[in-house]
Amino acid sequence: MPNPTAAMLVIGDEILSGRTQDTNSNHLAVKLTEIGIGLREVRVVDDEPSDIISAVNALRARFEYVFTSGGIGPTHDDITADCIAEAFGVGISVRDDARVILATNFKNPEVELNEARLRMARIPDGADLIDNPVSKAPGFRLENVHVLAGVPAVFKAMVESVLPTLTGGEPLLSITVRIEAPEGEIAARLGELAKADPKLSFGSYPFIKNGVFGSNIVVRGTDKVKLKQAEHELSRLVEDLM
Amino acid sequence: MPNPTAAMLVIGDEILSGRTQDTNSNHLAVKLTEIGIGLREVRVVDDEPSDIISAVNALRARFEYVFTSGGIGPTHDDITADCIAEAFGVGISVRDDARVILATNFKNPEVELNEARLRMARIPDGADLIDNPVSKAPGFRLENVHVLAGVPAVFKAMVESVLPTLTGGEPLLSITVRIEAPEGEIAARLGELAKADPKLSFGSYPFIKNGVFGSNIVVRGTDKVKLKQAEHELSRLVEDLM
Repeated sequence: MPNPTAAMLVIGDEILSGRTQDTNSNHLAVKLTEIGIGLREVRVVDDEPSDIISAVNALRARFEYVFTSGGIGPTHDDITADCIAEAFGVGISVRDDARVILATNFKNPEVELNEARLRMARIPDGADLIDNPVSKAPGFRLENVHVLAGVPAVFKAMVESVLPTLTGGEPLLSITVRIEAPEGEIAARLGELAKADPKLSFGSYPFIKNGVFGSNIVVRGTDKVKLKQAEHELSRLVEDLM
Repeated sequence: MPNPTAAMLVIGDEILSGRTQDTNSNHLAVKLTEIGIGLREVRVVDDEPSDIISAVNALRARFEYVFTSGGIGPTHDDITADCIAEAFGVGISVRDDARVILATNFKNPEVELNEARLRMARIPDGADLIDNPVSKAPGFRLENVHVLAGVPAVFKAMVESVLPTLTGGEPLLSITVRIEAPEGEIAARLGELAKADPKLSFGSYPFIKNGVFGSNIVVRGTDKVKLKQAEHELSRLVEDLM
């Protein structure tokens, strides 16, 4: 059985304006790879309801798991929960369990749990809450869509809350061999190696460092023995270059 | 007239596996924002022809400019040029002008310009070449799609080659006010400010630093005077918090 697949939807004009470098999708990618779930697409969209809704619907139909980050805070530009409800065609309202979680965050909930903060207790009908040990306000899961916060520390904590609930696959192992020669020198033999074993995936990721052209060859697969063989073949390729 | 829009397509399983943090889209975002082009979507897809082709066709239909990064080197996993040709329904072959550029990179082109490297001279029919001052192998533009390299140093150089050919819009200006209070404290007044002037966009980007919850309020717009007013209103909001 092939490994489960996943997509990530990053919601936030701060990423698209260049103000902020998204790091959440890289964090999620690492975590999913570890448990054998293949992240197959990342999308970053603006804080535009129609863009968010159509992206959610496109991704949840194509992938086993979808994760979103951003837009679930208390301000006017936090529209993710409403968009998710609309994408699924369900209602959304302040929910008691979410309200209780938020209330316990404040000494004086009557005053401090104001209208803006209550927005964070608005959860689409039928969703399960996702624990947020950092700043209380919960995320939620509706079917295969996991809605997480955008602040990296909170996003990471929510990912930890979610990971045990996911069904992983065979962990994808990899070996890396660094080659200090231009890709053009090794491309032919690398192509032969890749062709010889279709169960392994050979990637060549070129770099330029201190004026030297080189490439990291990464081989991925689930079979340790085959990976070891590939590593050996690549070492021979490196020796032949010298 | 509204500003031109753009999308970025990052091609590469090394991003999706978490091995590499994509920084090219952030670089492009900053550069486009400066010249008044709005980056509206970023997609990261796997090295899968069908995924690349459908993403290219979806994005080039929706946005004025599309930029891709990755997959134009000499190895077997460099399939971007072929995918672009297929997306446009045009042919692809080794082109003389690209071949000459590559040949000048080598002391002994007869030997060094091997079959793998010649792959980098394969350009879809009807495309213009994009200059690559770092490692010679050119990118290309077909209609509104700009195909650039994935190695950050080369990507950046190619962006510089492309920028003068783009038609920008009104530069989007922004002011930022840092507020050291939880978003829930300021959400109501911030919402009122946002409502009062629909020509300005108010974003609230929360952070947690050394245990302190705060938010950067970013106001964007093209009118300097209005932005100055908004900055003044936000300073008053900060004073009232103290």
